[in-house]
Amino acid sequence: MLVILFRSKLTASAAADGYPEMADEMEDLARQMPGFVDVKAYKADDGERLTVVWWQDEETLKGWREQVRHRLAQRLGREKWYEYYKLEVAQVVRQNAFERPATAAREPAGL
Amino acid sequence: MLVILFRSKLTASAAADGYPEMADEMEDLARQMPGFVDVKAYKADDGERLTVVWWQDEETLKGWREQVRHRLAQRLGREKWYEYYKLEVAQVVRQNAFERPATAAREPAGL
Repeated sequence: MLVILFRSKLTASAAADGYPEMADEMEDLARQMPGFVDVKAYKADDGERLTVVWWQDEETLKGWREQVRHRLAQRLGREKWYEYYKLEVAQVVRQNAFERPATAAREPAGL
Repeated sequence: MLVILFRSKLTASAAADGYPEMADEMEDLARQMPGFVDVKAYKADDGERLTVVWWQDEETLKGWREQVRHRLAQRLGREKWYEYYKLEVAQVVRQNAFERPATAAREPAGL
């Protein structure tokens, strides 16, 4: 599995200039693409946005990168929506997780 | 380069139970370790925290994973600070960036 880190800051005019609509459209579209696994959005204290996308493999990611509407969105992003972006593609080599066990119900006192 | 995604949610008591102090200590310590590249913290709308850490390679990351104070912090995290965590380690395969060019100063009218 691949994980894509897309960090960005928007221009002051992006919110009023079609960005939110295109971002929604791109998320809907990505979810329908072969190879899409998951997406989640985060924000740093300095206002930087981070979108993390998990994708099945390079072949299906290539399909998304070359999708026609997505290519238009990328072009418009550089033309007017992004102050900057930093993209990283990485291959997941291992995962690990922890979940706190539910607290066991105690027996009522006296029983 | 490796990128580590550490997603977590804290327990209700973590903030008053030593977590912030240990988190600060761990960040200071990580920055001094061989192989440390960068770290940045993010948060999702649902409250999930994401710490992204960039590390030079597997060998130096192993050094950090086995660092004595860090091992204690990991143990305390599972004992009392984390409701859950999800850790992913990934190998960066490519990077790409865009920065909006500074707007060129216009010549004053009439010159």
